[in-house]
Amino acid sequence: MLKFDLLATDPDSHARRGTLTLNHGVVQTPIFMPVGTYGTVKGVMPRSLEDMGAQIILGNTFHLWMRPGLDVMQSFGGLHQFEKWNKPILTDSGGFQVWSLGAMRKISEEGVKFASPVNGDKLFLTPEISMQIQTVLNSDIVMQFDECTPYETKGHLTTEREARTSMELSLRWAQRCKTEFARLENPNALFGIVQGGMFENLRDESLAALVEMDFPGYAVGGVSVGEPKDEMLRIMAHTPHRLPAHKPRYLMGVGTPEDLVEGVAQGVDMFDCVMPTRNARNGTIFTRHGDLKLRNARHKSDPQPLDATCTCYACAGQSGVSWADGGRDGFSRAYLHHLDRCGEMLGPMLTTVHNLHYYLNLMREVRESLDAGQFSAFRARFKTERARGV
Amino acid sequence: MLKFDLLATDPDSHARRGTLTLNHGVVQTPIFMPVGTYGTVKGVMPRSLEDMGAQIILGNTFHLWMRPGLDVMQSFGGLHQFEKWNKPILTDSGGFQVWSLGAMRKISEEGVKFASPVNGDKLFLTPEISMQIQTVLNSDIVMQFDECTPYETKGHLTTEREARTSMELSLRWAQRCKTEFARLENPNALFGIVQGGMFENLRDESLAALVEMDFPGYAVGGVSVGEPKDEMLRIMAHTPHRLPAHKPRYLMGVGTPEDLVEGVAQGVDMFDCVMPTRNARNGTIFTRHGDLKLRNARHKSDPQPLDATCTCYACAGQSGVSWADGGRDGFSRAYLHHLDRCGEMLGPMLTTVHNLHYYLNLMREVRESLDAGQFSAFRARFKTERARGV
Repeated sequence: MLKFDLLATDPDSHARRGTLTLNHGVVQTPIFMPVGTYGTVKGVMPRSLEDMGAQIILGNTFHLWMRPGLDVMQSFGGLHQFEKWNKPILTDSGGFQVWSLGAMRKISEEGVKFASPVNGDKLFLTPEISMQIQTVLNSDIVMQFDECTPYETKGHLTTEREARTSMELSLRWAQRCKTEFARLENPNALFGIVQGGMFENLRDESLAALVEMDFPGYAVGGVSVGEPKDEMLRIMAHTPHRLPAHKPRYLMGVGTPEDLVEGVAQGVDMFDCVMPTRNARNGTIFTRHGDLKLRNARHKSDPQPLDATCTCYACAGQSGVSWADGGRDGFSRAYLHHLDRCGEMLGPMLTTVHNLHYYLNLMREVRESLDAGQFSAFRARFKTERARGV
Repeated sequence: MLKFDLLATDPDSHARRGTLTLNHGVVQTPIFMPVGTYGTVKGVMPRSLEDMGAQIILGNTFHLWMRPGLDVMQSFGGLHQFEKWNKPILTDSGGFQVWSLGAMRKISEEGVKFASPVNGDKLFLTPEISMQIQTVLNSDIVMQFDECTPYETKGHLTTEREARTSMELSLRWAQRCKTEFARLENPNALFGIVQGGMFENLRDESLAALVEMDFPGYAVGGVSVGEPKDEMLRIMAHTPHRLPAHKPRYLMGVGTPEDLVEGVAQGVDMFDCVMPTRNARNGTIFTRHGDLKLRNARHKSDPQPLDATCTCYACAGQSGVSWADGGRDGFSRAYLHHLDRCGEMLGPMLTTVHNLHYYLNLMREVRESLDAGQFSAFRARFKTERARGV
């Protein structure tokens, strides 16, 4: 099932506030969805995810198909029970990962042939098989199997003709997904994905054809695939707000905190990105006043937390009182710098909690500003604060 | 400060039940102390340590001296504030780590010269410097700087003459530590360490001389250094119960769950060992019914938790209800096997929580059996259950 209720719209932008009801619960939108590739958001316990207000997480169909495999997933009745996450889950289609195999895969009308990166087995992924796997996973939101049109291939920019061929293939696959999803009597919700590369006319065609097929929700794919930032912003300004207003809109694989706030202004309801978790492991920290490089020697004996305004466990400890409000229970930059330098697991554990909390809290602030009819003011203040520097 | 109160003694063994009051709190003995080498028990958040009932943890003087260094430690007023652990901390003297540098160090009457393994700097560690560092760390229990007599060196078993020379050096260093500790007006407690290798007469001499010096607590060192198990058990049966009854006794670096229960029977109050944390990261799991090898393929789709009787977060989830009591919130062996296979951080995070919980809970059961005057029965049941197999 999927039910989307629009609660408020911003008069000065395309921003919207809504609730998305799925089989495993209700999601407040706009929302950021942490990525849990192999059935785990890297470095985070499920209870920590709940503590920091995660409402829906991702799983990767391709990875879970490889390991632990469908037999194990079937025996657990799906991904929720396997990874002990009882709230909604969205799974991708496997298309993007198969695409990323590069020379190791061969695409035809029927689907994609490839060699398993785990054991070399020859495998075949089709729209039907993707639907079958996602049905076993029992994810609340199932993504159609598509071809993710690249921005460039070995220095060759994708031409309009190539982007059209790719987009049209994805449309035929969308229909096959829809048919198979219905045949499987999957009780969850299937999203169509708008493609068309960097060509707005192709995006319009893709969108129109998908709307004709009447999916319960739509994604914008083929962004955040290596294109320059202004190209990404151009597509983000073009496509989302043209999607049906009464259905949820998901911008795949985006992005920085600035991208998220801009995406909301352009009418996006849902985001996912590995950036908060991956950057945490590499020592890049998101804060209200800009990004912080934890490996910089200037943090060696700094007693401050990562973000003085933050109430996450890393910044505010058990009490949850921020440094700015007088709390002194959080972990210092000096300590986190030390843990990183010593290669201690606790380092990425704490920075991951912080970065995810930052993203989830940012979206909470976005929602609150929409509820209060103050999104424009929020957006301006957000930009100023982030530009201040940490 | 240190205050040790003996609450009960077992009539059938040397086992004792006590409380140890230190500057940062009260510790119930017998106790297992998790090892936090670099200012972090590897893979565990401080709040998880508290959840699982850790009362006192270790820090390593040598490692913390190298990184982050004394300047940082000084600026935080010690290790507690740096690592955000407000309960008692015990630090070792650095002697064992310097010893482990092998060819890179040179021992004299004055102390040990060595090259920093971090940056190659030439460094000198003496009893006085060890006391100075541990005073900066402000650990509740400070260990004397000693020479850890090896069991063998490149195939050569340590002779009685060599063990005597080493033991006598440690005694002279014990006196220097005591003098320096007093000069520094360190408000915590200094423990002496019994050495003497595998020679009971030397152990007796060491013990008598240390008791003469009147330390507030005593450790048995030079075990768990590569000797055969029966040699370790022989020293464990010889030394601890000969130490003063009204002072705490600490057996350093020991050991398996069986070793701990045997150690308690021999009169030991305190244990530390890297085994639960290190083995967790290597997929060896301690359970009530024996050790479990998580990497074994037979766990691939097993829905059971690691230990059906365990109430840790890994085995019983948020509810804390064990599988045996009908709880189904814990993580399955299949899931933990999968995380290990994929190299996901959550794997060692959860297995570390379990193994530490196992050790801490084992000691809680030991204490309860002593409180109830049932230690002999507990000891017999423990052996039977552990031998059953998992």
